[in-house]
Amino acid sequence: MLEHGGRLRAAAATYGIALADWLDLSTGINPQGWPVPALPPAVWQRLPEEEDGLLDAAAGYYGNAGLLALPGSQAAIQLLPTLFPPASVACLGPLYQEHPQAWQRAGHRVRELPTLARALAAATPYVLLCNPNNPTARALPRTELLAAAQKLAARGAWLIVDEAFIDPVPAESLASLAGTAAAANLIVLRSLGKFFGLAGVRVGFVFAAEKIRAQLAQRLGPWSVAGPSREVARLALQDSAWQMTARQRLFKDSRRLAALLADLGEVEASALFVIVRSVAAEALHRFFAQRAILTRHYAPQPLLRFGLPGDESGWQRLQAALEIWKKNAV
Amino acid sequence: MLEHGGRLRAAAATYGIALADWLDLSTGINPQGWPVPALPPAVWQRLPEEEDGLLDAAAGYYGNAGLLALPGSQAAIQLLPTLFPPASVACLGPLYQEHPQAWQRAGHRVRELPTLARALAAATPYVLLCNPNNPTARALPRTELLAAAQKLAARGAWLIVDEAFIDPVPAESLASLAGTAAAANLIVLRSLGKFFGLAGVRVGFVFAAEKIRAQLAQRLGPWSVAGPSREVARLALQDSAWQMTARQRLFKDSRRLAALLADLGEVEASALFVIVRSVAAEALHRFFAQRAILTRHYAPQPLLRFGLPGDESGWQRLQAALEIWKKNAV
Repeated sequence: MLEHGGRLRAAAATYGIALADWLDLSTGINPQGWPVPALPPAVWQRLPEEEDGLLDAAAGYYGNAGLLALPGSQAAIQLLPTLFPPASVACLGPLYQEHPQAWQRAGHRVRELPTLARALAAATPYVLLCNPNNPTARALPRTELLAAAQKLAARGAWLIVDEAFIDPVPAESLASLAGTAAAANLIVLRSLGKFFGLAGVRVGFVFAAEKIRAQLAQRLGPWSVAGPSREVARLALQDSAWQMTARQRLFKDSRRLAALLADLGEVEASALFVIVRSVAAEALHRFFAQRAILTRHYAPQPLLRFGLPGDESGWQRLQAALEIWKKNAV
Repeated sequence: MLEHGGRLRAAAATYGIALADWLDLSTGINPQGWPVPALPPAVWQRLPEEEDGLLDAAAGYYGNAGLLALPGSQAAIQLLPTLFPPASVACLGPLYQEHPQAWQRAGHRVRELPTLARALAAATPYVLLCNPNNPTARALPRTELLAAAQKLAARGAWLIVDEAFIDPVPAESLASLAGTAAAANLIVLRSLGKFFGLAGVRVGFVFAAEKIRAQLAQRLGPWSVAGPSREVARLALQDSAWQMTARQRLFKDSRRLAALLADLGEVEASALFVIVRSVAAEALHRFFAQRAILTRHYAPQPLLRFGLPGDESGWQRLQAALEIWKKNAV
């Protein structure tokens, strides 16, 4: 299994700085997540029920009722490769490593390729990508991916798209078409972890043909998503006023972050994080960590990810550290 | 997949009685569950971490640190059969039907046998039982099960015990030994759904040899239990004062319920529910449902399960209905 989490804890130990003193910019999670209210006691006490309104709320938000709720899109990452006969899967890399690892575990051969054109040319029965991609922040246009799905359908192949970071630009999502007659070979993963800032609730969705969803549902078994998680997801998915405000703020903040980091190297921004490509990535990571600011270094690649500060004091701390770096660099 | 839940909803429709008007005695869930407090926002927002104290709290409560947390013991029910080569499994029946179904799905042959002696004599590589059993409320002594585990170990076979209903009598649990050198072939499932009344949180534990736990962990993947669920479980498992009070109340209430139902047939009580064996089981189920009291009829068997009323008005409703039944029966 890949090592996840505990990064802040490890950094606190390595740099001898108390946990509470860190500015954690190491994730792509919205730091001003959907505010969870008090929940009715029944959601903790009773077994979750399918008829609790979550599926309707999700169908409305994603524009597709052909969906399955899961305990995080991670559950789909784990299970999808086990539904298909072992073969070759072309992944657009570098990408979130849980995907290739899960396909390998299920006996598939993984080919990591740098462009969609090359992934299609590899003639594998499965093509997998993240859009927008993490860590590179590369975003492929919806039209290009739809054309790819059609091309793949013509030779009986599947396209799997993980859209964990797409919520700020809903018009670019393929969720509304995945598994419908228009794109029966398309499978889309969505998550409440990033945009809604609800990584702890473990709620994700799969959009896919009915047969795929039924197989996933059987492997998950009943009640795979917790009652309080279902209730929070239902409320957050229906809160379109919060969603609109959050989108606007994320765009403003990610532009501010990209501008702030522009001098550090080649900068690519998504609404939820900014990626800096620089030969000094490792040194930068260390420099910020010594100042209790945690970033994410994708060693051995020269990529450094910065999440958004959650409040003005966080922005000020980041800016102050950047000024020292630039002064030293002169 | 088996049909679960929605029973109250279905009964409301069948009998034309509004959902809110029912006294739901159809489950074996403690109606006065552990009271969930307000939780820190971070448990909803951040990815759950293994170092959050849940595993220590569980090791303390169950007396065994060789454990794995899962999204409900249902996750273990789904996954365990897939870890073992397809063969025959002897189940002590009648039992919770999710078990035999999961073994069948994984390609095993299921033999449902009425006694432990016959299950052992069947010479299968896997023996599975629920203790106390649901729906029969049969409880086998710990010593007898330990002897069975040793017998099975001698021929390289496994014993799997689902202890979802055992918390009121912790001294009878095998969790402290499962997977240790004393009982390496013993696998025990525990759950926070019943005694703690937290069926919605979806938290369960497996106690088993390290190799089994590692295989389960890999299939579950990271973050399989939600952050708020982990926090609630941690707090509930540490709340020994609540646990003691709850045990006393459950014993008092289940004795009261068994006495109340004594005239209906052959009565067997566990701390969390009472089972009535009667040829009139179906008629009784209908009679109570017409009075907005939902019980659980295990058709086609002559078994009717009554959970505990959660408050005095519930007791009074049940008692009033019973008096009408008895009057009519004379």
